[in-house]
Amino acid sequence: MSIFVVGHKNPDTDSICSALGYAALKQAMGEDAVAIRCGEVNKETCYALDYFKVEEPKLVEKLSEKQQVIQVDHNEAGQAIDGLDKAELLEIIDHHRFGGLTTAAPLYVHTEPVGCTATIVANMFWDNDIKMPKEIAGLLLSAILSDTVLYKSPTCTDMDKDAAEHLADIAGVELKEYGLAMLKAGAGVGDLTPLQIAKTDSKPFSFGSYKALVSQISVTDTSEVLDMKDDILAAMKEICDKEGFNIIMLMVTDIIDEATDLVYYGEPKQLIADAFGKDVSGDYIHLPGVMSRKKQIVPQLTEAAAKF
Amino acid sequence: MSIFVVGHKNPDTDSICSALGYAALKQAMGEDAVAIRCGEVNKETCYALDYFKVEEPKLVEKLSEKQQVIQVDHNEAGQAIDGLDKAELLEIIDHHRFGGLTTAAPLYVHTEPVGCTATIVANMFWDNDIKMPKEIAGLLLSAILSDTVLYKSPTCTDMDKDAAEHLADIAGVELKEYGLAMLKAGAGVGDLTPLQIAKTDSKPFSFGSYKALVSQISVTDTSEVLDMKDDILAAMKEICDKEGFNIIMLMVTDIIDEATDLVYYGEPKQLIADAFGKDVSGDYIHLPGVMSRKKQIVPQLTEAAAKF
Repeated sequence: MSIFVVGHKNPDTDSICSALGYAALKQAMGEDAVAIRCGEVNKETCYALDYFKVEEPKLVEKLSEKQQVIQVDHNEAGQAIDGLDKAELLEIIDHHRFGGLTTAAPLYVHTEPVGCTATIVANMFWDNDIKMPKEIAGLLLSAILSDTVLYKSPTCTDMDKDAAEHLADIAGVELKEYGLAMLKAGAGVGDLTPLQIAKTDSKPFSFGSYKALVSQISVTDTSEVLDMKDDILAAMKEICDKEGFNIIMLMVTDIIDEATDLVYYGEPKQLIADAFGKDVSGDYIHLPGVMSRKKQIVPQLTEAAAKF
Repeated sequence: MSIFVVGHKNPDTDSICSALGYAALKQAMGEDAVAIRCGEVNKETCYALDYFKVEEPKLVEKLSEKQQVIQVDHNEAGQAIDGLDKAELLEIIDHHRFGGLTTAAPLYVHTEPVGCTATIVANMFWDNDIKMPKEIAGLLLSAILSDTVLYKSPTCTDMDKDAAEHLADIAGVELKEYGLAMLKAGAGVGDLTPLQIAKTDSKPFSFGSYKALVSQISVTDTSEVLDMKDDILAAMKEICDKEGFNIIMLMVTDIIDEATDLVYYGEPKQLIADAFGKDVSGDYIHLPGVMSRKKQIVPQLTEAAAKF
């Protein structure tokens, strides 16, 4: 049975493309590994897969017992594919904070504080002198441009930029032009329902004793989301009630203006007030310069919760 | 201020030697890193340091706030130097299971399921084409021979053996002869008190809701410990009462016979019965072939606790 390589639930471009890239690396090194996904592919990722003519990974909703698995782009139990607790976790390749990782046995873990898992995967190809297929270079490039929002995110490091430029050469695309087209393909609400908007690219977190969901949607004009705010708040209430979250936040991130409007529902709102030093009596706050959940939202909420 | 490289509390040969080795690697790569220790150096490690004429790392009992630190040979909070929660954790290089690792931000983590942290450190020298000083090769070799008990432990992998043989060449020692002399220097009770015996190479663990301490002493004849069993059990009771452990286990490991007598005090003893399928009505159980806490004791207790 093949080893599964899988990203997080509600996969973004990095989770899909790093899974495909790492599975390709493992195959080139003689291991029987195959990329899978545990959720729907988003519009942006579809654009990248279509552009480089790669099929989306097979959907697996729950791992069978004893399945050997490699996690990419996440390490927190709440974000992982169902059935992971009974499976055999072999490796983790990631670029996020650790959220309570507990394993029965030692395993191979490689994490780095870089902007994208694909940057780590690309360097693994080069460190091991493995020739990278053109389409894999294109997918890893897509992941970096997505996670760093074309280098604009504060999570972006020189290592990400170096990898992206090298990958663009291999893939044969003009980096900025391709990246902007990909981001635009993924941005905006399109025909998403308020519930789908509230759950776009969502990840669960524990902040102190509070169970939170933090979603993020990229737009080129925040008003297309804010105009639907009341319906989105009603959907957030429904998610809180049904899934047991204390609080839900939706980052509406303007990739042109480089700012986020953070829409929230639930309690304690004071956590948001403490984290960002803002008045939270309205339904949302404006956060200029904020583009990264990982660097500009989650640590601030984690620290605020620790002092709560 | 230098970056500190530190092993676990109650350091063993791997924690001291991998800290020295990784600090030397960082220095060779132009970073200001220095090895420290957060506990006394044991007899075995003293032998290795004396043999290769290396001074022991400076003792630091508590980190100051914002101190930058790299952890080697551990990742569990309970095993870490005091003050780590207020310090800045930069990296973890380790070969143990994960025990609830939580960080505010992403960091560099490199763990592998090998027998010794020093094996990972040695390969980092070679992967980065950094020339390894002879005495560092000797110390990293010592750590591998210690953790794998001269390759006899089931934790020992081909990667450990390959590294050890290469290191012995660089250090200019005959591997088996040196290793046996080092292990013998560290084995036995010498003039240790019953309390010191009960705490030899001890590590705290959480098994389900139970707080446990698992210590290990290497001997060439188990009777020298078992003859003092009543005094050691009294010391274990004292540790439980004073430090709030539910249960304490002492692995008395015969490095010649390749077996462990596991002496225990506290409750629930049924956890030990379930983990090893033995009658626990006495004060200790005999476990033939058992040499590794990490592979043959901790996972079994973790699994038993999960079903408790």
